[in-house]
Amino acid sequence: MADKEIDVIQNIYDENDKIALETKDNMGKRGVFVVNVMGAPGAGKTSSIISLIKGLADEKVYVIEGDIESDIDTVKLKELGIETIQINTNGACHLDAPTIKKSLTDLSLDKPGILFIENIGNLVCPAEFQIGEHIKMLICSAAEGSDKPYKYPLAFEKADIILLTKGDLKSFVDFDDEFFLKGIRALNKTVPVFEVNAKIGQGFEAAVAWISTRKNSAIK
Amino acid sequence: MADKEIDVIQNIYDENDKIALETKDNMGKRGVFVVNVMGAPGAGKTSSIISLIKGLADEKVYVIEGDIESDIDTVKLKELGIETIQINTNGACHLDAPTIKKSLTDLSLDKPGILFIENIGNLVCPAEFQIGEHIKMLICSAAEGSDKPYKYPLAFEKADIILLTKGDLKSFVDFDDEFFLKGIRALNKTVPVFEVNAKIGQGFEAAVAWISTRKNSAIK
Repeated sequence: MADKEIDVIQNIYDENDKIALETKDNMGKRGVFVVNVMGAPGAGKTSSIISLIKGLADEKVYVIEGDIESDIDTVKLKELGIETIQINTNGACHLDAPTIKKSLTDLSLDKPGILFIENIGNLVCPAEFQIGEHIKMLICSAAEGSDKPYKYPLAFEKADIILLTKGDLKSFVDFDDEFFLKGIRALNKTVPVFEVNAKIGQGFEAAVAWISTRKNSAIK
Repeated sequence: MADKEIDVIQNIYDENDKIALETKDNMGKRGVFVVNVMGAPGAGKTSSIISLIKGLADEKVYVIEGDIESDIDTVKLKELGIETIQINTNGACHLDAPTIKKSLTDLSLDKPGILFIENIGNLVCPAEFQIGEHIKMLICSAAEGSDKPYKYPLAFEKADIILLTKGDLKSFVDFDDEFFLKGIRALNKTVPVFEVNAKIGQGFEAAVAWISTRKNSAIK
């Protein structure tokens, strides 16, 4: 790649990170804890967010749904009475800080609480960009197989919390728990991994408690 | 985005497409049909390639494995006696034409046949870049859910052939065949969709026949 191209790309990253830190700071001052939800297509991101919200019943919750196209998940969340806005990136493979900053003006943000931002379904690019989050939550489906930490390391390295969904499908894909965890620990010594079933909303209690604790230490 | 940034990005696309067409042309002259295999993480790309190769027993087959990191799939393919080389993109979210052009010098290409290039597991970015292929094959896992054509349209729009894997998991994720196909047809009126089970190698006969026919019409 030519030097000019590298400079342009570095400028995009630097500007993005500056805006992300401003957003995180502004949201923190309002008492809003921001969770950047990442995962591959069909990992169960929206279903997991819904289950977490049910567990966080005392909190005001906001959601930003990032999709390349469509508003399928936003419709689902609004039907549940959750304040949700849709971002369509029209092709872009990840959310970025300027896009999130702009979209925040469409949320009421009238109370302290938690903002879940569901990133584009992509196990690669979203991990490279801060968007204003306090924590990154990675959602993995057991159906994707247990080798994902080895093949897509950055998302696992950067995750503050990991949810493993669709555990009922493990036997169908010869999912190897030990291999999966070994891959994660090689990248990230401390990230908690919670096994959940987002389809029936099971196993979210520990993840909800972890998020609440983390929120309370981040937002004074 | 500034004009300078747009120019730089457009130049990258133009240069990529030029090299991709050269590669396609060169490979065609050697009698090698090139298949760009795309799909989300854990869709079953490598398992599907292995099943297709078994069905294409009369063909010399070459594989280029694209991964961000690791060589798990290359090891698996080499153990089966398949001439395979590994590309690690070290972070990049898709393969591109210059990378493929360079890597081709590491393959023998001593006989006419078929080259499968397994792209990075990503339902977004690979669809934007030609790499020298005659056809794009999209691998979707039923476990990802039936709404993927609506959320990730470009990959479905550009696919020449679609394989739907992990059909045995449909009932676990409430997979809706009609909704899935309706989404595909809105984007792509003619692409054939073959349902396969890559884990046990079932259902690949029709896809193998389709690839052979397509190869024979592309390579004179």
